[in-house]
Amino acid sequence: EIAELLDSQTSSQLLAGKKVIITAGPTREHIDPVRYMSNHSSGKMGYAIAEAALKLGAEVCLVSGPVNLNAPTQASLHKVNTAEEMLSAVMAEVQDCDIFIGCAAVADYKPTQAVDHKIKKSNIELTLTFVRNPDILASVAALPKPPFTVGFAAETQNVAQYAKDKLARKKLDLIAANDVSRSDIGFNSDENALTLYWADGEQPLAKANKQQIALQLLEAVAQRFNQKHS
Amino acid sequence: EIAELLDSQTSSQLLAGKKVIITAGPTREHIDPVRYMSNHSSGKMGYAIAEAALKLGAEVCLVSGPVNLNAPTQASLHKVNTAEEMLSAVMAEVQDCDIFIGCAAVADYKPTQAVDHKIKKSNIELTLTFVRNPDILASVAALPKPPFTVGFAAETQNVAQYAKDKLARKKLDLIAANDVSRSDIGFNSDENALTLYWADGEQPLAKANKQQIALQLLEAVAQRFNQKHS
Repeated sequence: EIAELLDSQTSSQLLAGKKVIITAGPTREHIDPVRYMSNHSSGKMGYAIAEAALKLGAEVCLVSGPVNLNAPTQASLHKVNTAEEMLSAVMAEVQDCDIFIGCAAVADYKPTQAVDHKIKKSNIELTLTFVRNPDILASVAALPKPPFTVGFAAETQNVAQYAKDKLARKKLDLIAANDVSRSDIGFNSDENALTLYWADGEQPLAKANKQQIALQLLEAVAQRFNQKHS
Repeated sequence: EIAELLDSQTSSQLLAGKKVIITAGPTREHIDPVRYMSNHSSGKMGYAIAEAALKLGAEVCLVSGPVNLNAPTQASLHKVNTAEEMLSAVMAEVQDCDIFIGCAAVADYKPTQAVDHKIKKSNIELTLTFVRNPDILASVAALPKPPFTVGFAAETQNVAQYAKDKLARKKLDLIAANDVSRSDIGFNSDENALTLYWADGEQPLAKANKQQIALQLLEAVAQRFNQKHS
């Protein structure tokens, strides 16, 4: 029991005094007043990371898209719908932030123009055009004094290659790769398995519940963060 | 109290021996393994109608898109995602059905082709084409021996005119018109206000919680149903 207590005390120090921003859940991009485009992110992974960061002593700011989860009460919660709202909320908080974890499944595209009345189904075919949304992760990593920036890569094919490309291209400090073609992990599941990549290393996190994965992820992040600032 | 008891006993007879199918919630149309198009229907109105129909003695079959609500345990529940799945579930149950209430916000369009891997965001612009989904309400009303068929019209403009057109065009027995441009009622709200239209009449249901609106709607439906079969 003493060992456990020491363990929990040691681990509770890991992120003490650090401000961590975590984005979670999907974003919704409005097509018209009733229709939207979104994705299957449940927010469970991001919320688990927020819980774990609080356990490790961090000050946590959780920027969340629409999900059906209860946020940890000690976190400062910002609820948003669109990617642009998420970017604004992140930018308002990022100045004094030490670690940014972009876990949200931000919609890559938004409709070219959202219409303010419901589109009528007059045609056999409907064509919608979309333009790129702001890239929140890249925007944070490109700041003059960026926080330690962690991204996620949720992919269905060539997961490792795509994750390493994204790490370099967006100038991230660490990326967590997620194979979402597996139905037993990832989106909407209570379990996950990740592989972490950074500039000169990698670490697999074997399938476990999202709470355990979140703690292991943050332990790796804290280690890399300390190395970067030592 | 005796009057109340009589009232509740009378009202409990209203749909006794009747099989009622209710569709509820949105549908989700898959664009790729992670992205989908959907709408803001919470399912609250359809679930309230299912509860109310059970109170009035009906046998209830609830065909529901993805929502975060608990279905009444006495209802037979069919969970679906897409409009095509909803149509199949309805058609499997409709043979011996007396009353069909299409309360779901069925997606009018589905992607021309769903892709089985995640679309990469390689382009500045993305164009998606959609084709019309099956029209569940019209399919039910066009059956050789259709049940008493009730539709909803959720509109943001010209609500009354559009509702009456839809009533005639789809050969419905009754339609409930819903002005979803009002933020205090309709989608995601706990309250609603409807105007009911049928071939030779109409009836406004003033703003109330969705449970009360559901009971008033079913009372009007039972009355018109009995008139049609007398």
